[in-house]
Amino acid sequence: MLDIVLRKVQVEGQQVDVGIAGDTIVQVEPEIEERGCREIDGQNRVAITGFVDCHLHLDKSHLMDRASYQDVSGPEKGALTRREKACFTEEDIYKRAERVVQTGLQAGNIAIRTSADVDPLVGLAGVKALLALKGKYAGLVDIQVAAFAQEGMEKYPETVELLRQALQLGADLVGGHTIIDADGRGHIDTILDLAREFDVEAEFHLDESGNREHYLLPYLAQRMIELGLQGRVTGIHCCTLSALTPGERQEALELIKESSLKVISAPTAISTRALAPVKELLAAGVLVGIGSDNVRDFFNPIGSGDIKQIALLLAYVQRFFTADDIKQLWEMLTCKGAALLGYRGYGIAVGNRADVTVLDAHSPVEVFSRQAPPVVLVRGGRDITTEILGR
Amino acid sequence: MLDIVLRKVQVEGQQVDVGIAGDTIVQVEPEIEERGCREIDGQNRVAITGFVDCHLHLDKSHLMDRASYQDVSGPEKGALTRREKACFTEEDIYKRAERVVQTGLQAGNIAIRTSADVDPLVGLAGVKALLALKGKYAGLVDIQVAAFAQEGMEKYPETVELLRQALQLGADLVGGHTIIDADGRGHIDTILDLAREFDVEAEFHLDESGNREHYLLPYLAQRMIELGLQGRVTGIHCCTLSALTPGERQEALELIKESSLKVISAPTAISTRALAPVKELLAAGVLVGIGSDNVRDFFNPIGSGDIKQIALLLAYVQRFFTADDIKQLWEMLTCKGAALLGYRGYGIAVGNRADVTVLDAHSPVEVFSRQAPPVVLVRGGRDITTEILGR
Repeated sequence: MLDIVLRKVQVEGQQVDVGIAGDTIVQVEPEIEERGCREIDGQNRVAITGFVDCHLHLDKSHLMDRASYQDVSGPEKGALTRREKACFTEEDIYKRAERVVQTGLQAGNIAIRTSADVDPLVGLAGVKALLALKGKYAGLVDIQVAAFAQEGMEKYPETVELLRQALQLGADLVGGHTIIDADGRGHIDTILDLAREFDVEAEFHLDESGNREHYLLPYLAQRMIELGLQGRVTGIHCCTLSALTPGERQEALELIKESSLKVISAPTAISTRALAPVKELLAAGVLVGIGSDNVRDFFNPIGSGDIKQIALLLAYVQRFFTADDIKQLWEMLTCKGAALLGYRGYGIAVGNRADVTVLDAHSPVEVFSRQAPPVVLVRGGRDITTEILGR
Repeated sequence: MLDIVLRKVQVEGQQVDVGIAGDTIVQVEPEIEERGCREIDGQNRVAITGFVDCHLHLDKSHLMDRASYQDVSGPEKGALTRREKACFTEEDIYKRAERVVQTGLQAGNIAIRTSADVDPLVGLAGVKALLALKGKYAGLVDIQVAAFAQEGMEKYPETVELLRQALQLGADLVGGHTIIDADGRGHIDTILDLAREFDVEAEFHLDESGNREHYLLPYLAQRMIELGLQGRVTGIHCCTLSALTPGERQEALELIKESSLKVISAPTAISTRALAPVKELLAAGVLVGIGSDNVRDFFNPIGSGDIKQIALLLAYVQRFFTADDIKQLWEMLTCKGAALLGYRGYGIAVGNRADVTVLDAHSPVEVFSRQAPPVVLVRGGRDITTEILGR
């Protein structure tokens, strides 16, 4: 007798039964003979481990409950955020962030990566709050916390020491922001040094303005190669790629491949600038994930933390319309996103942890088109459908 | 004793009770003393009459169940569509279209306007099927049918007579397509003549390519003024507005205002071209609505017929982020959309028909952000929540 048998779900296009014993997937077969203590009828719906949201700013989420959006420049939005940030407490951050994690869990997330600002304004409150949240949601949604130098090190040199402390506290990786300091190269070097010191990955808000004068991707890729950090660094946004000539872009793609730089697209940025060309990156074999980025803060007052909304946005803006495009989009939300965040054992397969999300749709395209929510949530062998979805 | 009292719903930002007797709203008060045979707790959620989807192609929807999307040019997609269209039957069109109407109803629609291709390939099958659907859904979702010269009159001159027959059958208005015939002005004149002959409104897929060589908006506006058709004509897309110089655009806005040309934005067109500048149109006082346009056909294989998805897309692409932007977006989906389609008695107010849609959100921004579905549907005084939403 198995603990759970999930009957007739679609896994990567095949209809199968999934058998769970304890916290492990023990059978994936066209038809499992054995019965389960709990039998769930999947009704030929799509089943995945869960969605992966590669980039969020949980610490600054839901500020729109206390402040009004103003349609000003990016730096001015940064200033508005700093004003709020100076008043953040650990508890306050935790509460706001938890709302987004709950939204994501209800939408079927299995893993997210969030930045946590680290600077003299907020100190380590963001990192501490988000690490506490990571602990609380362990086994439900895996939360990776990047200690993030949002404000740069030139204006706030104490940030370097704070980042070190954040990593000592257990932050999963270190994050930089290539356009914030006048010496962007120095900024990159400092962050990469920290990554090496703590043997963690690094990620950068990379060339996020989309302006040609902000273009440090080649320098970063070069440094990755020199330091042997291939595949250990991620660029978020990389908007300047969209402003290059075809020849320059080709050179950039070569460098990205050579350095195995990973890329996260945050499509809501379309509200202010062109996005990195995701299809081109994918065609070149680059590992690309998608992130919700801002959730109801000064940069995106209508965000939610539901990554399939963001995938639909990208689908329209960059025309992910063919069957292959849909497959690519799907993979970015699932297996490729998981690979980008460094997970092993992602996927509904024998031996993997029993994390299963059944969506109310019969194909990936229907998930996007109908924005289909989960109908069954199993995490670590535990059926949490009623607890989380209230049904 | 009232038939239904809906307690504590938010109507245009005010918390009220709504009293219904028969098919009419008879009280809208902060607190209604009288009891209802049926009492519904609105839990301070947002209530509207329903959403208005101003533009759809129901007759060509859900072709992706029988054909594959191909990433080819617009004219080539047109050719693929014509091949399918030649095999359409009334029953086939009805069935596919009904799926979209159901999706819209479940998402809270109260009214939609759809084109129905009229040409020698499909004859009047589209118009007949959609008029039958209009009859079936009367009282639930109002369906306006535009007899549409999708293929133009130069290649298919019989179309003019077919349009006349469609209008005799009861099509609500006549639709043209300004870039399909070499003589776009002649096309416009023919459609406007039909509108006058049958005393119906006209709508045009207007300058939909976005290319400067396709720019008949000034001619159309001029003709509207000359013929006394101010406010009786709608332009769908108007993409070329985005390709004009600021000076030209200002002239265009003046003409739009002078002619009271109404405009429908179909934001999924962003997949291939820039959209008309909706904020500028609204700021100039133009009546603008939003449409889902294509639903799982050769032009949009991921469409759904859920207009709030499309509003979210527009919000990101044209940065509808301020409180006023959100209000404008909301109005396009509700009262302005209704005004554009010519409805009177839209809105939750005493004397209006008892159509009430309660959404699972406490503010319009939450409806967009969380893509909140309806939780209560009342149409003509009848609570159809369980019937339609299955809860």
